[in-house]
Amino acid sequence: MLDRERCSRVVIEAVTPEIDGGRFPIKRIIGDELVVEADIFADSHDVLSAVMLYRWEGDSKWTEVPMKFLVNDRWRGTFKVTKLGHYYYTITAWVDHFKSWQQALAKKFKAKQDVSVELLVGVQLISEASQRATASNSSVMGEWAKSLQARQTPQSAKVRLALSQKVARLMDKYSDRRFATKYHRELAVLVDRERARFSTWYEMFPRSCSTRDGVHGTFKDCEQRLPYIAAMGFDVLYFPPIHPIGHTNRKGKNNAPTAGSNEPGTPWAIGSEEGGHKAIYSKLGTVDDFRKLVTKAREYGIELALDIAFQCTPDHPYVKEHPEWFRWRPDNTIQYAENPPKKYQDIYPLNFDTDNWQELWKELKDVVLYWVKQGFHILRVDNPHTKPFQFWEWLIAEVKKDHLDVIFLAEAFTRPKVMYQLAKLGFSQSYTYFTWRNTSWEFTQYFTELTQTEVREYFRPNLWTNTPDILTEYLQTGGEPAFKVRLVLAATLGASYGIYGPTFELMENLPKEKGSEEYLNSEKYEIKHWNIDRPDSLKDFIAGVNSIRRENVALQSDLSLRFHPTDNEQLLCYSKHTVDHSNVILVIVNMDPKNKQAGWIELNLDGLGLEPDRPFEVQDLLNDVSYQWRGPRSYVELNPKKTPAHIFRVNRHIHQEQDLNAKIHKRI
Amino acid sequence: MLDRERCSRVVIEAVTPEIDGGRFPIKRIIGDELVVEADIFADSHDVLSAVMLYRWEGDSKWTEVPMKFLVNDRWRGTFKVTKLGHYYYTITAWVDHFKSWQQALAKKFKAKQDVSVELLVGVQLISEASQRATASNSSVMGEWAKSLQARQTPQSAKVRLALSQKVARLMDKYSDRRFATKYHRELAVLVDRERARFSTWYEMFPRSCSTRDGVHGTFKDCEQRLPYIAAMGFDVLYFPPIHPIGHTNRKGKNNAPTAGSNEPGTPWAIGSEEGGHKAIYSKLGTVDDFRKLVTKAREYGIELALDIAFQCTPDHPYVKEHPEWFRWRPDNTIQYAENPPKKYQDIYPLNFDTDNWQELWKELKDVVLYWVKQGFHILRVDNPHTKPFQFWEWLIAEVKKDHLDVIFLAEAFTRPKVMYQLAKLGFSQSYTYFTWRNTSWEFTQYFTELTQTEVREYFRPNLWTNTPDILTEYLQTGGEPAFKVRLVLAATLGASYGIYGPTFELMENLPKEKGSEEYLNSEKYEIKHWNIDRPDSLKDFIAGVNSIRRENVALQSDLSLRFHPTDNEQLLCYSKHTVDHSNVILVIVNMDPKNKQAGWIELNLDGLGLEPDRPFEVQDLLNDVSYQWRGPRSYVELNPKKTPAHIFRVNRHIHQEQDLNAKIHKRI
Repeated sequence: MLDRERCSRVVIEAVTPEIDGGRFPIKRIIGDELVVEADIFADSHDVLSAVMLYRWEGDSKWTEVPMKFLVNDRWRGTFKVTKLGHYYYTITAWVDHFKSWQQALAKKFKAKQDVSVELLVGVQLISEASQRATASNSSVMGEWAKSLQARQTPQSAKVRLALSQKVARLMDKYSDRRFATKYHRELAVLVDRERARFSTWYEMFPRSCSTRDGVHGTFKDCEQRLPYIAAMGFDVLYFPPIHPIGHTNRKGKNNAPTAGSNEPGTPWAIGSEEGGHKAIYSKLGTVDDFRKLVTKAREYGIELALDIAFQCTPDHPYVKEHPEWFRWRPDNTIQYAENPPKKYQDIYPLNFDTDNWQELWKELKDVVLYWVKQGFHILRVDNPHTKPFQFWEWLIAEVKKDHLDVIFLAEAFTRPKVMYQLAKLGFSQSYTYFTWRNTSWEFTQYFTELTQTEVREYFRPNLWTNTPDILTEYLQTGGEPAFKVRLVLAATLGASYGIYGPTFELMENLPKEKGSEEYLNSEKYEIKHWNIDRPDSLKDFIAGVNSIRRENVALQSDLSLRFHPTDNEQLLCYSKHTVDHSNVILVIVNMDPKNKQAGWIELNLDGLGLEPDRPFEVQDLLNDVSYQWRGPRSYVELNPKKTPAHIFRVNRHIHQEQDLNAKIHKRI
Repeated sequence: MLDRERCSRVVIEAVTPEIDGGRFPIKRIIGDELVVEADIFADSHDVLSAVMLYRWEGDSKWTEVPMKFLVNDRWRGTFKVTKLGHYYYTITAWVDHFKSWQQALAKKFKAKQDVSVELLVGVQLISEASQRATASNSSVMGEWAKSLQARQTPQSAKVRLALSQKVARLMDKYSDRRFATKYHRELAVLVDRERARFSTWYEMFPRSCSTRDGVHGTFKDCEQRLPYIAAMGFDVLYFPPIHPIGHTNRKGKNNAPTAGSNEPGTPWAIGSEEGGHKAIYSKLGTVDDFRKLVTKAREYGIELALDIAFQCTPDHPYVKEHPEWFRWRPDNTIQYAENPPKKYQDIYPLNFDTDNWQELWKELKDVVLYWVKQGFHILRVDNPHTKPFQFWEWLIAEVKKDHLDVIFLAEAFTRPKVMYQLAKLGFSQSYTYFTWRNTSWEFTQYFTELTQTEVREYFRPNLWTNTPDILTEYLQTGGEPAFKVRLVLAATLGASYGIYGPTFELMENLPKEKGSEEYLNSEKYEIKHWNIDRPDSLKDFIAGVNSIRRENVALQSDLSLRFHPTDNEQLLCYSKHTVDHSNVILVIVNMDPKNKQAGWIELNLDGLGLEPDRPFEVQDLLNDVSYQWRGPRSYVELNPKKTPAHIFRVNRHIHQEQDLNAKIHKRI
C-alpha cells in the first residue's frame, strides 16, 4: 500500500458529463459554458476543497477553477470553451485542514468555549502554509501567526482575524494539497463551430439544375439557383456525389436493372474511365467551375456539403489499380454489394480488412483531404455504418488534425446503438429516425431520449423531411398540410434539419409503387427539370419558418426541448428556450393533415420561465397573431387547411402598447 | 494504429452489473445465478458470437458460457457462483463469418438463387476452421468440405448440410476468433455466505444478563439467555464491546460527565490497565468462558457478532505504548473526540494518518484477526465512516484472505454517498436510514433506491428497529402497536434486520428528555436487570414474525421488493417473491399506531405472478385467516389495537379442499 494512496482520503466519482468512462469526448460549440459535476466526499466531517482543471489541446498548462458544493456531496464547476478542438478537464479535491479548523473554531467560539489551544493549532497551520508561499505573502502570513499568539490581543480579535476573508484567500492559495485526490481520468470535450449545432440543409442534384429541358445541369447552373436557395433561408447546400458515374451494370429509370444508352445512372455509382473519388464528372463542369460555385455560394451565406460515399463501380480506377482492395469470390469475380436476396452488381464495396488496408485507408483519407482543400468543410458521409468503426475514428481525427472546422454528418439509418457509436467516434451530426416518427407518443419518446439523456452530450440530430431514398407514406397521402407539418416539426424539433428539394417544396408525393418509400421516376436515376416557380410551391412558407429559426435563438439548440401534455393525441406541443428564458418558443402541431383538431394543452410554466399567476402573450410567428394566456391550461384549435401549426414566441412581460396594438384573441 | 485494433470490429459496452467502471466488485451469495448483460454490436449486418468468461479467484482457467442475443443489440449470459470469495467475469465477442455466411446462404437459397459460388465460400470457411480443429474433428470437417464440392450432390442437399446442427456445432467450436474483441475489464463479484443476505440480529448487553439484581452479568449468564433468544428466532447475537472499560473521565448514569465510583461506564470506552482491544473485561469472564458461549450459541443456531470500535480511553495501553498513534495538541495533550461544541474527553480517536501508520494499521488488523480466530465471524463495525476508506478496503481484504466467511456490518449513520462507499469497499451489510423513515412516501422512495437501482448490487441493508443510541419518537409515543409496526416493517422490508433487546420486546419507550432519541437511564451507562418474562412482552409476536421469515424464502432477499399503491397514505403495501413466484409475500401495514385505517390497495398482479382474471388466496400468516381475492383492487382495514399489519402469503392456485376448509372472508 502506497503512502500517497493512503493519504488521499477524498473520493471523486459520478463525474458528469463523462461518456463510457471517458472513452469518448463530449461535444460542445465555441462559446458554450461547460458545467461539470461530481460526487466528492471523504470520511469523517472535514471540510473539503475541490477545483476543476481544464486546458485546450494546444496548451500545456492547466487552468484551475474552484468547484462549488451543491448538496448531498455533489459539487459543480464551469468553464467556457473558446477555441475549436479538444479541451481536457479533470478534478482535484482534498481535505482542507484550515477550513475544517475555521469551522470548528467558529462553532466553539460561538459556544463561548475557550479557544486558546485551537488558536495555537491555527498558528501551526498558517506557519506551514507560509512555507509554500511567495516571500511577500509568507511575511504577511507570518504577521498573522504572530497576531494569533500575541498575549495582549483579546481572543475575539484573534478569532475575527482567523475567520477573515483575507486569511481565507491566502490560505486557500497555499492550501496543503500534498494528499489531494486527482480524478483518475482526463475527460475530453470536442469543440465545434456553431454550424455543427445549428444548420439548415438543402439537398439538390446539380445535374437537374439546367433551365433547359433534357440538358445535363452544371455547376454554372447551380450558381443561378443560389438566390432561390438563399431566399428560402438555407445555409448548407448538399450535393450527392459529383464524381464520374460508372457504366457497367448502370441502373436505368426507376432502378431498372439495365440502363438505356442515354440514361445517366445514379451519382452514388462512383467511378469510370474519367476517374474516381477525386475526379469531377465532366458533365458537371471543371474544378474551376466548382471553385467558383463555392465562392459564389459563400456570398449568399451558403456552405457547400459534399457526399462521401466510399464505394466503387466496376469501372472505378481502383478496381484495376488496386484489385486487392476488393473482396474476391472463389470464381475469381469481385464480390458486389448485396443484401440477400437483393444484389447490387453495379457496386463493389471496398474491403476495409484487406491485407493492404494501410494503403487503402490512406488513400481514402487523401480523398477526404482533397475535397476539404477544395472548400468542402461539411461532409455528409454515406452509410458509415457499413465500414469499420475504427476507420471513422481514425479518419475524422486525421482530418481534424489540420482542419478543426470540418463537420461530418453520418448518414446511418441503422440500429440505435450503432448510430450512437458513430456519433461517439467523432461524427458531428447524425441522421435520425425523425423521418419515420409520426405519433405524439413516438416524438415524445424519441426526442426525450435524444435531448434529455446522456445521448445529448455526443449525438447531434439532423432531421430530414425527405431524402432521395425516403418519401414517407405521410407525405404521400397528406397533401400540402402534411408537407407543412413535417417542415415545422423538422425545423423546430431540430436545430439542424434538411429537405431534399425541389421535390419537397414542390410537394412531389408519388411513390414508385404502393407501399414503397421510393419516389416514382426518382431523380436518383434520371435528370429532372423542376419548375421552381410553380405558384403552389412551399418556398415562401419554408422561407418564413427558416427566418423564424434565425431570429429565435431558442430554436438553434436542442438541449432545452420539453414536451407539454395535451388531451388530444393529434396535437403535439413542445417548447425550446434559451438558458435565461429571454427567448421562449412554444410549438403546437396538428399531426392530422386531414381534419381540424382541438384540445387543451397543459404547459409546464416553470420550464417556460413563466409565473403561474401572471398573464403572458403568445405570438404566432407564422401569422403574427397574438393571444393572451394565463395559467398552464389553454385551448387550441388547428385547421390543417389554414395553418397546421402554431410557432409561438412566448412573451413574459406584456407591454401596455403591445397590448393595445396587438390583436388579442382570447380563445377561451 | 495496430492491426489487431483495426480488425476488432465488435464493440462491447454498457455491461451490467458493473460498479464505477469495474472499480468495485458486486456482491452475491453462494448459489446465486449471476446475470450479465452487455451491448454488443459491430458495423454492417454480420452475425456476431459472444461468450462470457468467468473464473473463481483460486482458478487460473476461465470457463466460457455462450451469451444470448436479446433485442436491440443487448446480449445476456449467466453463471452460478458456488464458492466463497471473488469470481471474475468478462466478455469476448467476434464477427462470426460462418454464421453470417449461413444466414446469407439460407436467404439466397430460399429466394431460389443459384448458390454454387456461395457453397465454395463455405468450403473455404470450413477448411480454414478445420486447421484449428483436433485431428478427428478436422477429418470430419474435411469430409463436409468435400461433400459441399461433390459434383453429383444436388445443391439442396449441400445447403441442408451447410445449415445442419452438426456443422454449426463444430464450426462454433473452431470459430475464427483472431479478431475477437475482449472487453477491456475483468469485473469482480464477491460471493458471501447466505447469512450476509439473510440474518436476524439481536443486540444485547452481556453485563445486564445476570438474574441477580445489582450483579454484573457474565458470559455464563449469557449462556442461560440463549434459549430465550433462540425461541424468538434470532440467528445473530451481537454484543457491544466486551473489552476492559476505561475509568478516566468515565461517563455516569444518563451520560453524566463524571461517574460515581460504582458506575460501570460505557462498553464503547475501550481500554484500561486490564488491557485494550484484545482483552476481555474480567467482570464478563475469561476467554474460556467466552469460547464456551460461542460453542453453546452455535448449538442454538446462533452466531455471535462482536463490535469493532477503534477508539481508546485515556487508560488504553496504546496511549502509553504508542503515543504517536494519537493526535497531539499544541498544549501537549492528546486530542480527544469532539463534534464542536460537544466534547468527549473519555475518548481518544486513533490518528490513522500518523507517520507510524503502517504499525497502527497492522495492529488493528491483528485485533480483528484475533477475534475472528476466537470464533467471531460476524463483526459489527462502529462508526467506520470516521476512519479512512482505504483503511477499511485494506483491512477487509486482509481478513478475507484467510477467512472468506467473515461478515462485516457497517454501523455508519452518515451521508448516503459515504454509506454507499463503505459498502463498495467491502462491508457485507450496512445500517440504513430505516429507523428514521416513517411515511409511506419515505419508505417507497428509500427502499426503491436500495433495491431497484445499482445500489442493490453492493449495499445490503440491515434494518434496526432501535439501537442503544436510537429510541425514535414513533416508538416513544405509539405504544404497543408502534413496536409491532416497526418490527413487521424491519422484518419484511429487510432480509436482514435487528432489534436491541430486551428493551424492544419489553417496549421500553421513555426518552432521556423530550425531543431526545436517547433512552432514559440508558443501558449504555448502567447495568440493567430485565424481567424478560413480563406477560406484556412482545417475544411471542417476534417469534411468530421470525418464523414467517424462516418459512418464506421470498422474505430472505430484498431484490424482489415492490411497492403497490394504496389510496390511504397510512397504509403501506409491498411484496416480495421468489424468482419463480413459488413463494409470494404481500405485506400491508397500518402506519398509524393510534387509529383504525382502511382503504383500497391496487396490486401489480403481474409482479406478483398473478393472472388478472383468476381468483387467488391471501393467507395472513400472523393469524392464519385467509381471504379470496380477484383482480388488482382490494379493500383492507387494519385496527392497530388488534393487528397493525397483514403478512399475507399469496397462493395462486386455490385447491378445492382448501377452499372448503379455509375461512373465506370476502371483504368486498
